[in-house]
Amino acid sequence: MSDVLYRDPTAPVDARVRDLLSRMTLREKVGQVNQRMYGWDAYRRTSDGGFELTEALYAETDRFEGLGALYGLQRADAWSGVDHGSGPGAADGAALAELVQRHVVGRSRLGIPALFVEEVPHGLMALDGTVLPVNLAIGATWDPDLYERAAAHAAAELRARGGHVALVSALDIVRDPRWGRTEECFGEDPYLAARLTEALVRGMQGAPDDDVFAADKAAVVLKHFAGQGATVGGRNSAESELGLRELHEIHLPAARAGVRAGAAAVMAAYNEVDGIPCSGNRALLTGLLREDWGFDGLVMADGLAVDRLARITGNKVSAGALALDSGVDLSLWDEGFTHLEEAVERGLVSEKTLDTAVARVLRLKFRLGLFERQDATARPPADGAAISREAARAAVTLLRNDGVLPIGANVSRIAVLGPQAATTAHQLGDYTAPQLPGTGSSVLDALRRLAPPGLEIRHAPGCALTGDGRSGIPEAIAQAAASDLAVLVLGGSSARTPETEFDANGAARKAVSEMTCGEGVDLAGLRLGRAQYALLDAVVATGTPTAVVLIQGRPHLVPDTADALLTAWYPGPWGGEAIAGVLLGLTEPTGRLPVSVPRSAAQLPVHYNHKDTEYGGYVDESAQPRYSFGHGLSYTGFAYGTPRLTGLTVEVDVTNTGQRYGRSVVQVYLRRLLTPTWPRTLELCAFEGVGLAPGECRTVSLTLDPEQLAPSRTVEIRVAASAGEALGARGHSLTAPDETPL
Amino acid sequence: MSDVLYRDPTAPVDARVRDLLSRMTLREKVGQVNQRMYGWDAYRRTSDGGFELTEALYAETDRFEGLGALYGLQRADAWSGVDHGSGPGAADGAALAELVQRHVVGRSRLGIPALFVEEVPHGLMALDGTVLPVNLAIGATWDPDLYERAAAHAAAELRARGGHVALVSALDIVRDPRWGRTEECFGEDPYLAARLTEALVRGMQGAPDDDVFAADKAAVVLKHFAGQGATVGGRNSAESELGLRELHEIHLPAARAGVRAGAAAVMAAYNEVDGIPCSGNRALLTGLLREDWGFDGLVMADGLAVDRLARITGNKVSAGALALDSGVDLSLWDEGFTHLEEAVERGLVSEKTLDTAVARVLRLKFRLGLFERQDATARPPADGAAISREAARAAVTLLRNDGVLPIGANVSRIAVLGPQAATTAHQLGDYTAPQLPGTGSSVLDALRRLAPPGLEIRHAPGCALTGDGRSGIPEAIAQAAASDLAVLVLGGSSARTPETEFDANGAARKAVSEMTCGEGVDLAGLRLGRAQYALLDAVVATGTPTAVVLIQGRPHLVPDTADALLTAWYPGPWGGEAIAGVLLGLTEPTGRLPVSVPRSAAQLPVHYNHKDTEYGGYVDESAQPRYSFGHGLSYTGFAYGTPRLTGLTVEVDVTNTGQRYGRSVVQVYLRRLLTPTWPRTLELCAFEGVGLAPGECRTVSLTLDPEQLAPSRTVEIRVAASAGEALGARGHSLTAPDETPL
Repeated sequence: MSDVLYRDPTAPVDARVRDLLSRMTLREKVGQVNQRMYGWDAYRRTSDGGFELTEALYAETDRFEGLGALYGLQRADAWSGVDHGSGPGAADGAALAELVQRHVVGRSRLGIPALFVEEVPHGLMALDGTVLPVNLAIGATWDPDLYERAAAHAAAELRARGGHVALVSALDIVRDPRWGRTEECFGEDPYLAARLTEALVRGMQGAPDDDVFAADKAAVVLKHFAGQGATVGGRNSAESELGLRELHEIHLPAARAGVRAGAAAVMAAYNEVDGIPCSGNRALLTGLLREDWGFDGLVMADGLAVDRLARITGNKVSAGALALDSGVDLSLWDEGFTHLEEAVERGLVSEKTLDTAVARVLRLKFRLGLFERQDATARPPADGAAISREAARAAVTLLRNDGVLPIGANVSRIAVLGPQAATTAHQLGDYTAPQLPGTGSSVLDALRRLAPPGLEIRHAPGCALTGDGRSGIPEAIAQAAASDLAVLVLGGSSARTPETEFDANGAARKAVSEMTCGEGVDLAGLRLGRAQYALLDAVVATGTPTAVVLIQGRPHLVPDTADALLTAWYPGPWGGEAIAGVLLGLTEPTGRLPVSVPRSAAQLPVHYNHKDTEYGGYVDESAQPRYSFGHGLSYTGFAYGTPRLTGLTVEVDVTNTGQRYGRSVVQVYLRRLLTPTWPRTLELCAFEGVGLAPGECRTVSLTLDPEQLAPSRTVEIRVAASAGEALGARGHSLTAPDETPL
Repeated sequence: MSDVLYRDPTAPVDARVRDLLSRMTLREKVGQVNQRMYGWDAYRRTSDGGFELTEALYAETDRFEGLGALYGLQRADAWSGVDHGSGPGAADGAALAELVQRHVVGRSRLGIPALFVEEVPHGLMALDGTVLPVNLAIGATWDPDLYERAAAHAAAELRARGGHVALVSALDIVRDPRWGRTEECFGEDPYLAARLTEALVRGMQGAPDDDVFAADKAAVVLKHFAGQGATVGGRNSAESELGLRELHEIHLPAARAGVRAGAAAVMAAYNEVDGIPCSGNRALLTGLLREDWGFDGLVMADGLAVDRLARITGNKVSAGALALDSGVDLSLWDEGFTHLEEAVERGLVSEKTLDTAVARVLRLKFRLGLFERQDATARPPADGAAISREAARAAVTLLRNDGVLPIGANVSRIAVLGPQAATTAHQLGDYTAPQLPGTGSSVLDALRRLAPPGLEIRHAPGCALTGDGRSGIPEAIAQAAASDLAVLVLGGSSARTPETEFDANGAARKAVSEMTCGEGVDLAGLRLGRAQYALLDAVVATGTPTAVVLIQGRPHLVPDTADALLTAWYPGPWGGEAIAGVLLGLTEPTGRLPVSVPRSAAQLPVHYNHKDTEYGGYVDESAQPRYSFGHGLSYTGFAYGTPRLTGLTVEVDVTNTGQRYGRSVVQVYLRRLLTPTWPRTLELCAFEGVGLAPGECRTVSLTLDPEQLAPSRTVEIRVAASAGEALGARGHSLTAPDETPL
């Protein structure tokens, strides 16, 4: 027991917060809501291989007599310039964090520690961090339990490095795949995203009612709130014209689920929604989030988003005041929040409002136990590769198969072609830290390792990911022509590290930047590099059966000319192995599409849950996607029995009718009949994956959420294996017996 | 003076309405809000060339003891099947109307006449009606005064045929040119649309405070209310996800202006807005329109839109009740409104609500003088062709000119090529009635007629509008190669009448349906028929200087390979002459783009007034349009002086710096600086066309509307000749001196 209340770990968190707050100066308070520094500016390597703190950090802790939060101390990527030579890794990251924290606490009159905030969009984005498949691939698993385990692993890794707070994209819903951040979304569907967001929060934070975080659990900041997946034209950070119903039906359910699961924080999005920028949106951040939903956590602004408000307020001081007043508690890199003392003194925002924000920051620090210990709280968890590999495997989605997969005993020579075949660099997704050589495996490596003896494997890249260089195509044609099967690995890239590659003919070396996806990299035409299409045409023209594998961060347009088509999105370092396993039939393709795959950019948007206007299509093109949301083939077959509806429970018998094990994802869609507002064609309202041995039949029972059915009076339930199939499926009516809303 | 109040023409309209309503039965009331019949089912031609009424009309007037309104008595097109043989024309349309009206009044116990409602989207869509350029071409004129005269002409034509009410698209704002009804819009900008909508109402109805319409004025139904130009994907009647601010800023200003100008009626749109179908949207039709805006006119539903509400209410009786209760006064073709007796008796809607709707219908009948006379009130106005020709001329817009236009004295042979060159059929736009042979002129005809002596003109169509037939291209190449200039007339078509054409090689005849635009004809890729691109490439490849002319209902994608590019949208029957005049330099190109012309469908939306997010563009494409809103070249040059700002008045000196007469459209854009919501890059806030002789300088004075500037505290004013130019123009600040909103 300490004689100072806020230092007493046995005192209730709220009492500690109140006590501490009452002792703070205005300047100290302002310090707590700032997160101005880039973490990599806080340290430098010393000549003996250790770390020392920088003048920049000293200046920052001096300025506010402490430090509210520090972003990206462990971050390493092309932008930060941090690599294995300069940055902290698994061996010394925790020590660096402790060094910084002891400095911060020492500079703070009241001994207030800093929050260490890290990017964890798909695993910890730090040197030696375990890279997981991107969220779009997680969406393809349709497996919240698996994702919960992966999230738990990432949180433990973060805490083992001395980090506290994980920034994770979870709330953005892909409504336009032109958007470069499509890969960061769980998909186009609010229900799927909500279930995965819950899993994320449970996995990272633990049970929702724990006031104090366990040593291996981290606080999650759910990104981004709200509507960022629906900016016009898929343009990053652009306007979102959404009305409130559309926002609530499509873009808020994941946030609502995350808040219910106890998420410690949400991040206000860059975009505006119908005229109001999220960082200055009191109705959203305070009215909806806190007052209606009862959220008592922290709201962080996105990087420099507070300063952007100066566009309408005239300067950064008033921008900071507007954001704070709207409900932003913690800023990121902005100047605006550094002027909050002046803003309070000028009456632009009240000190009471500032106190509320500071209290939320302090509360999180207490909940994380930061006042009790400055070192890392967790041991590095084992088996990062195992969980990442498992998730990658679950994400592999077979979109078409004319019988060439799995690779049969009749195949003795395979040509593994394409610019994605022999590299892991482009399997990783945006934000990823530099990888140690040998981490993970490419499709080519894995095929060579996993193929049965006697299966001959040849390789030619054929072309680069981008551009129109076709000099490598003849070699690829020759190899395809001399093989029984061509595996053509195409795709896009979010790799920020320019890398040197051999030209396709082996002659020239060139440094290429092949980024066609990722934050800020929006792609209007949804097309691969031009040479990739030429390569596809040339390989198919050889007459050798061809399976196309797409490694990608969004759906790309690829003509249906090959015999099989498979995607694993960005599956992570071990994605090559996951893909090879499916190609060879060692594992089953169990992924299902979390987004509709369009026929062209001209038919966007193509998500499955359009309003039910029975639109007949364009005169030059169908309005339906090429592949439907929820679609994914197996190597076995499944039969669904007639669904039985009892109360809000749907039961359906699922039988594996084929010769192999397989996993079917039973999808329940609802179709609103009597309902006060215009309904969508279909809405996903429940799903469950079921693994079945050949011939096995199991009854899958799914319970519908009455809240999702409301306020309709009558709905129809359709059970199917994809949204496209559900369109033609027989419906089963469900009516509120007393004529009150369901 | 009659001893029955409602029959007394000197009594106030409202008193007459009250008196008549008090005498009506429930069934008679229900009859007044119905408009179930197609007008062409009400009559048939007799063997002596006259008309007789049908059993269908008898049954209808019997059913409700009268008739509320009759749609399309004069309509003739492919859909109605009415043509010059069967339908009413200029000579006998008025007599038919009188025949029907006398019947209706005779069947009505209280002698209530019917409203005759006709389609007047671009002139009276009836046999012998004057076809005007479509609204998109009207938008290109940037000339409200001219349009007011054209609208006055159309109203007089309507009244001369015994019609009373004109249905006119005016409110839809093109936000996505994939939409087939793009041609019906004044463009992408709310301000331009508002000024033209005012002109429409003034022209058709006269002064706003006239309680009783003049004999040559008609009541306007402004279509469509609201948000129909922003359905997702440009999909006709699909959902519109708009929030309220977007709706108010972009989609409602034209309606607001039309209501202020005194529009007699508006039509509820097919689409839903953020979940609420317009026909069942009480907040829109009653809350906003009547309570906030003080609109006291009629709300008509779009065709069968009331019955569509059964999708959410369960049946057509409740659908009718919902529409009536929401604020729909008059239905069109629906069954739902025929059951309103039952709906009232079952308590689904109150008789008081029905009374209100009936009163609005009756009020319009009194205002139109229908109780006083049953014959046509106006004489057919003269000079329809003159006003249509003038509007077509004003719409011709020169987008690019490398010096080949106007056609100079050095040119002695022209090849006039392309599928649009020698026909007027595709110049007309959707809804158009069959034209008498010889009406108007094609580009080829007009060039032959207007060209100076000695200018040799050859022609080959080259290809059809649609499809990939290339057999005619060699002849076109030959003609181009043998000429000094190729004029290549390409485009799309909204012509509903299938017509027989010679194949391009003159050998085969085939019936073609070439519709690529018009209601229900949405075009995902914005592309012309494939052969047209082949023709363009082939003609340009000859090396002969080439001017491309586009006749179209929306912006199409055409590569910038020719030496000049010009469009007149669908300019109407006399469009060929207008285009030829500009090509030859007999008239000046004075049109300006009312919509941005995109580079591809992949970059949509490209309207100029995006929110100011400083978006940098897609990785594979610019986010900027190919041609900017407001753009249009002249044959002369203009210099703008430095704008002077005095209060809300902007003055700018405009000088014609060239050698020819020309008209510049001075465009004033505002850029919001200190403002409560996220601003657009630019907003058009004033414009004025100024015609100048060579060397002439004139001061153009434009006054800004304080309502449009509010609620911003500081705005910047930029004067330019297009939105693209305004982006780079110097701004002039305008601040509210007292810090109250401008």
